[in-house]
Amino acid sequence: MGLNKSDLGPFFNPGSIAIVGVPRGGYRFGGMSFLKKLLESNFSGNLYPINPKGQEIQGLRAYPDLSSLPEVPDLAIVAVGARLVPSILEECASIGLTHIHILTSGFNETGTSEGKRLEEEIIFISRERGLRVIGPNCMGSYCPSSRVTAWGAIPGIDGPLGIISQSGGITQRLTEYTCSLGIGTNKAVSFGNGAVLDSSDYLEFMAEDKDIQVIAMYLESVQDGREFFRLAREVARKTPIILWKGGESEAGAATAAAHTGAMSGENSVWEGFFRQTGVIRVRSMDEWVDTIIALALLAPPKGKGVFLVGGGGGNSVAYSDACIREGLDVPRLSDGTMDKLRKSIPIAGSIAGNPLDMFRVFQDPEYLAEILELGYGDPNISMVIVDRLIARKAFHLPDLPDSTPEIIKYLKGRRDKKPTVFTVDSDGGDPELAREGAVRRRQFCVAGIPAFPSLKRAARALAHLFRWSQQVGSAKAGS
Amino acid sequence: MGLNKSDLGPFFNPGSIAIVGVPRGGYRFGGMSFLKKLLESNFSGNLYPINPKGQEIQGLRAYPDLSSLPEVPDLAIVAVGARLVPSILEECASIGLTHIHILTSGFNETGTSEGKRLEEEIIFISRERGLRVIGPNCMGSYCPSSRVTAWGAIPGIDGPLGIISQSGGITQRLTEYTCSLGIGTNKAVSFGNGAVLDSSDYLEFMAEDKDIQVIAMYLESVQDGREFFRLAREVARKTPIILWKGGESEAGAATAAAHTGAMSGENSVWEGFFRQTGVIRVRSMDEWVDTIIALALLAPPKGKGVFLVGGGGGNSVAYSDACIREGLDVPRLSDGTMDKLRKSIPIAGSIAGNPLDMFRVFQDPEYLAEILELGYGDPNISMVIVDRLIARKAFHLPDLPDSTPEIIKYLKGRRDKKPTVFTVDSDGGDPELAREGAVRRRQFCVAGIPAFPSLKRAARALAHLFRWSQQVGSAKAGS
Repeated sequence: MGLNKSDLGPFFNPGSIAIVGVPRGGYRFGGMSFLKKLLESNFSGNLYPINPKGQEIQGLRAYPDLSSLPEVPDLAIVAVGARLVPSILEECASIGLTHIHILTSGFNETGTSEGKRLEEEIIFISRERGLRVIGPNCMGSYCPSSRVTAWGAIPGIDGPLGIISQSGGITQRLTEYTCSLGIGTNKAVSFGNGAVLDSSDYLEFMAEDKDIQVIAMYLESVQDGREFFRLAREVARKTPIILWKGGESEAGAATAAAHTGAMSGENSVWEGFFRQTGVIRVRSMDEWVDTIIALALLAPPKGKGVFLVGGGGGNSVAYSDACIREGLDVPRLSDGTMDKLRKSIPIAGSIAGNPLDMFRVFQDPEYLAEILELGYGDPNISMVIVDRLIARKAFHLPDLPDSTPEIIKYLKGRRDKKPTVFTVDSDGGDPELAREGAVRRRQFCVAGIPAFPSLKRAARALAHLFRWSQQVGSAKAGS
Repeated sequence: MGLNKSDLGPFFNPGSIAIVGVPRGGYRFGGMSFLKKLLESNFSGNLYPINPKGQEIQGLRAYPDLSSLPEVPDLAIVAVGARLVPSILEECASIGLTHIHILTSGFNETGTSEGKRLEEEIIFISRERGLRVIGPNCMGSYCPSSRVTAWGAIPGIDGPLGIISQSGGITQRLTEYTCSLGIGTNKAVSFGNGAVLDSSDYLEFMAEDKDIQVIAMYLESVQDGREFFRLAREVARKTPIILWKGGESEAGAATAAAHTGAMSGENSVWEGFFRQTGVIRVRSMDEWVDTIIALALLAPPKGKGVFLVGGGGGNSVAYSDACIREGLDVPRLSDGTMDKLRKSIPIAGSIAGNPLDMFRVFQDPEYLAEILELGYGDPNISMVIVDRLIARKAFHLPDLPDSTPEIIKYLKGRRDKKPTVFTVDSDGGDPELAREGAVRRRQFCVAGIPAFPSLKRAARALAHLFRWSQQVGSAKAGS
């Protein structure tokens, strides 16, 4: 775009925001809902609602137009009808307002000639006048540390995550989901049609941001594929990029065209992209979140050998299958480890080895710590998955007190440990079980220890972590 | 085995049960935990704890041995040490007690010569004396209608499900999970090593049971592969069999050997089995449960075209991709339907068609019903997936009252409708969201309407339902 990419800062740290197109009353999605959410988030800068007839809106002084404002705001959120957007852009330019988020939809994505013409006009004006524009047809910028949280988890929490997305709804869910597990978002952008600023611009900006350690992307299309490829490959050498490409199927691609006017691109091209750039490919919200958690919280493992600790014979079989299916190994423990293990495990009713099927690990956190030490000391083992049960009526045991705090305390004292994650299964229609599962997973994650709702999801996330570690290792070796 | 398979009835409807090997006090897994769980379940028949020194255990008169009992019990649960099991079997035979569940482990699955010898002995005695034996190394029979619920969901609920499994832990979770969604289990058996009675015996028995409409199996191995193949193919023509084969990977197969002494068999053989019998293959607990729910609650669809109803542009793209990936279609709506749709949907900010991205469907149950009617009347559509949101702070809307009851009421009045399922996403570390999600999914499922935690899971279950319907259709056409 010829713009200086460091100039995207004001989108995330504006001192003042004008919202163009706030109705005087009522509550609907648009200028009013953005204004109210910014107030609710305690955004500390100046907020200027713009309404031709407005005098006061939500306790704030309203202005008839941008030219009447007492200062030039750092950011304008544009929520007027699509046909009025070009003239608003001209007005922005005339007062020197350069950072604009166009919330309005009704452009390329409609498939109409009117919509396409209007989007062309936006592009033309932005280039001519040097405007930096997010959108149109999107939720814009999000940054909990500066309380720019008019959407997504409100007020959210700051953290290692940077999000670049063509879907506001999906990003809203992602910020809410990760926030519920204590994984904060440093900056997010929902950029919809990407008419002016595109994925490469945001990626370059976030890659240079020292506070962002993991970049999550949801894309339906890319404007300049070659530039995006070059940039993604460069960035992925140091910062993991976890990309969910929407519109993979024909039906999905057709829907993407109606969503953001996207030309999704050939699948084979995208396959090559992932293979050659080292960008991590995910295909669902849960895979996206799980992989983010693993990459944000864990050190790179040295190998793909997993130690499976838990209980239940059938589960041990099923969990082994799940790990292998995801591309991990469930290796035999070394002879030294086995000698130590056999001392504490009866021959009948347990499976001694890897997986380890031993009910005592559920009941006795000190014994679990002993077992984990065996895994950390075993040369065949690079990662550990521990299954945790929540006691319930169906079980054949008197009770199973929650030892999550003790386990967390032990693991926090083992800073040099191999990547260790937990699974807590609480699926189904039992509200108390579901609640308790969420509580425990949150306890672990907030303490910096990944916890997942199923073993398959844990294994899938660790497999992504392992492959990324391999690639970073070889990139370092090659450089 | 040469036994009359209808003779398995007493395992599930015993008038009296002897538990051989109940300690006089304390609580551990084994004879005592089984006795206590049967009492807790309000099993109404006679219960006889057997203990050489016992006089009274848990308020029940205890007997020194089986021969001292005032009647011949219908079922014995054997929980003595492995070495004592053969002599107990002899004692059973001598008093005419023919139905025996051996809970004890320490046989083939240990890999020791002692364990193998003992299992051989069990097989020999059972054949010689005409005993019907479940096990060893397993949880035995489960039947909520007769309160034989010493494990699994306690007391559980009766329903359409029959379960045949080599894992007690996995079956316990399955009964609990389905019970939490209102899907009851008619009969289940955990049969461990399957030394005497094997999968084919249980399958033949359950296939003849009029109360069982869906058969779920977890197997690590099969003794007589040819007979099992023949039988499974025959049964699967009328009753869906949903089979999770554990020990698919090398590591899983090694674990299965340690779990039930299983020889898992070649993967290619199992692939042929699934292809030729029409048995439905699943690979995880969640896929198993989801498929059971779909098969238990839905009529066979005529085609694989799904109407996706919900909202959010990114979700619409992602959901389309997910359906296609699972083998379903997301077809265009017919021209007639599109004409009707366009009347109520604005061009900007929505995606009119299939998928339908229209926020109003979340807010207005009457409008949702109108939309569903369009789908039911469209020749391109065979199934419907409706996404439901739970209102929360992140959303740009004042409130979103729960209209689940209205939706259920509407759907109950549409008996001739196409298969319709719901998704309620409540993943993550937010306990209230998790709780509310479980409540809503249960509301739907209990009303006979499948509800899943994610679209991927809904699509996967419907894909299994569709493929099964195709096969039943062609079997009928061919007969």
